Amino acid sequence: MWRDLTPIGRYDATGGYRRFAYTAPELECRAWFAEQAAARGLAVNTDRNGNLWAWWGDPTDGDAVVTGSHLDSVPDGGPFDGPLGVASAFAAIDLLRAEGATPRRPIGVAAFVEEEGGRFGVACLGSRLMSGAITPDAARALADENGVTFEQAMADAGTDPMSIGHDVAMLSQIGSYVELHIEQGRAQIDLDAPVAVGGAIWPHGRWRMDFQGRADHAGTTRLDDRADPMLTYANTVLAARKKARLAGAVATVGRVMCEPNGTNAIPSRVRGWLDARAEDVDALEQVVREVEEATLARADRDGTNATITRESYSPRVDFDVPLRDRLVETLGGVPVLSTGAGHDAGVLSAVLPTAMLFVRNPTGVSHSPAESAEMVDCLAGVTALASVLRDLAC
Amino acid sequence: MWRDLTPIGRYDATGGYRRFAYTAPELECRAWFAEQAAARGLAVNTDRNGNLWAWWGDPTDGDAVVTGSHLDSVPDGGPFDGPLGVASAFAAIDLLRAEGATPRRPIGVAAFVEEEGGRFGVACLGSRLMSGAITPDAARALADENGVTFEQAMADAGTDPMSIGHDVAMLSQIGSYVELHIEQGRAQIDLDAPVAVGGAIWPHGRWRMDFQGRADHAGTTRLDDRADPMLTYANTVLAARKKARLAGAVATVGRVMCEPNGTNAIPSRVRGWLDARAEDVDALEQVVREVEEATLARADRDGTNATITRESYSPRVDFDVPLRDRLVETLGGVPVLSTGAGHDAGVLSAVLPTAMLFVRNPTGVSHSPAESAEMVDCLAGVTALASVLRDLAC
Repeated sequence: MWRDLTPIGRYDATGGYRRFAYTAPELECRAWFAEQAAARGLAVNTDRNGNLWAWWGDPTDGDAVVTGSHLDSVPDGGPFDGPLGVASAFAAIDLLRAEGATPRRPIGVAAFVEEEGGRFGVACLGSRLMSGAITPDAARALADENGVTFEQAMADAGTDPMSIGHDVAMLSQIGSYVELHIEQGRAQIDLDAPVAVGGAIWPHGRWRMDFQGRADHAGTTRLDDRADPMLTYANTVLAARKKARLAGAVATVGRVMCEPNGTNAIPSRVRGWLDARAEDVDALEQVVREVEEATLARADRDGTNATITRESYSPRVDFDVPLRDRLVETLGGVPVLSTGAGHDAGVLSAVLPTAMLFVRNPTGVSHSPAESAEMVDCLAGVTALASVLRDLAC
Repeated sequence: MWRDLTPIGRYDATGGYRRFAYTAPELECRAWFAEQAAARGLAVNTDRNGNLWAWWGDPTDGDAVVTGSHLDSVPDGGPFDGPLGVASAFAAIDLLRAEGATPRRPIGVAAFVEEEGGRFGVACLGSRLMSGAITPDAARALADENGVTFEQAMADAGTDPMSIGHDVAMLSQIGSYVELHIEQGRAQIDLDAPVAVGGAIWPHGRWRMDFQGRADHAGTTRLDDRADPMLTYANTVLAARKKARLAGAVATVGRVMCEPNGTNAIPSRVRGWLDARAEDVDALEQVVREVEEATLARADRDGTNATITRESYSPRVDFDVPLRDRLVETLGGVPVLSTGAGHDAGVLSAVLPTAMLFVRNPTGVSHSPAESAEMVDCLAGVTALASVLRDLAC
């Protein structure tokens, strides 16, 4: 099952994956999902928001236990972030069936669309739409870097973009959602724990930073006559790191665009994106406020104009405590970890009891081709997920 | 004549020009050159290196006086940088003919290929090839950002890329080269001088800066566990400005690339280009050395790897002094200006007596859509060029 998935969307030059929502590789991953479900006799459907579902049992019976994750990737992501949760869901069903289990609650496998925000810029778009956390109009208008809208991409894939939005009927059938995911840090290495349970997700957000200057000749313009937005940008990159460090938070500028981007031209415009996360909302807001102050002060000095615009924001999520405690008990006291990464389970926690299982990552690295997982830990993850499904649904 | 040229390669969103060597807009500019020459009964040919020539008189008579410039542009450049020199050459010939002048030396109009280095990265490529300042192999291997080589682009345009290189036969026919160019700074505004004569070109170069780090998740990777090349890059941008200021030089980072360039991924690699220029070679080398020192120190702190590679270098050029003095005398004592910008006249000064005329730019801005020239100053430039051609050739 895993072997069929690994070649899809792999970019040979880097060894990373580029599976952006509704692009050819992601559509291939979706076809893989449908094949896996069909091979197990599970009923497959695509919901109003483009998310994929496979059902063991009849979801209209209600109080379903759903597990899954996502199939899209960041640019040059690793193979496990997302697909491990989906493949482990099918494998856990295989385990339960092999032991002759019969679910008393329907069991669903979900793959949510555009979890990474890698194409349209808003992470967890499928679960946000389903839970009403983003309006249909706002989602339809999101565009990729070629100007293709989410509306268009969805229509091209055969899902009606006019039907998207808060899916109360679907949500009313689900009793709980458990997402299995590769760990995205080094905590499980330090704890020697192949499997852990999610505690909380740090509040986090993305800000677009626009630096406007004046294009000019790099050789003939006196330094004093320049309005060079690259200087303001560079100062902001360093300020973000420093302010995050002082606040015990994390901040990253991983994406930049420059115009006209010529070696011998002072840029007219630089655009960067800030990703910032902290343990609590106050610390996060403090970091962003301080970065903005440093940016405006430097822009004044550079003769440039800088604006910082929030593009997305996720408050702190504490996963459902009774569900979390039940997972820990079922799994014999595995550790509880908080994370700086957003997940569909975090978005859905606003409307459902949700929980997460983490599988150890021996490099600690993620969103990178260096992301990794040991086979034995993946099997421990599948076994743990099967135990959870057995406990909750059988 | 000018009206036919201005729409070609103009990018409406910015008002700037994108006329890169051997792209459709630049080929249209070449067609315009051929039409202008034909309308005046001038013989046109493309030389072995892809440069365009139009001749009043027979170049095989030798000791030709050549004037001209280039037709390509930087990304989003202005309308005058390059084309003003070519159009003024045709207009100066019109003036001389209107007054019934008869050249005793052949007069040539030249348009050199890839002057800006906007597509293949090496500025003044056509004049470098002609004068033997770059080897044919090195030139053929240059590639644009889509991987198309200069060899391929040239072959597609119908010029045999195996024939390029030092053109001794062509050079032996030329007695002097005078390039008219829009001024790229504010000196002529301050001097109230519509026309000036070139004195020297500052030594300048381009360096590619590679910053290698490790891609990782922007939310889950502790700051201490990161190797973020964007930090090293940002520090280098600020160091370049500071070191240049202290040395009385100029330095610019106007071009950047980031991989994977995702908002929630620490970059694996950032690449930037440094353009640096100074009045003398010692000051220039000092700036680059100090930028490199600052970069390596910061890379050590960031856990990244940084390398700085020289991509091109042009020594200081002092234009031919007798020719310069003759132009100043012919034009009644106009000012002599040095510049930080490279030109084909600078490259060719190694093999020919060359000179430059500058036309005032009321914004002082260049390599930008804001570049400008007053009609009255353009006419002063044409009149000055006609006087120079009359004095040298008639």
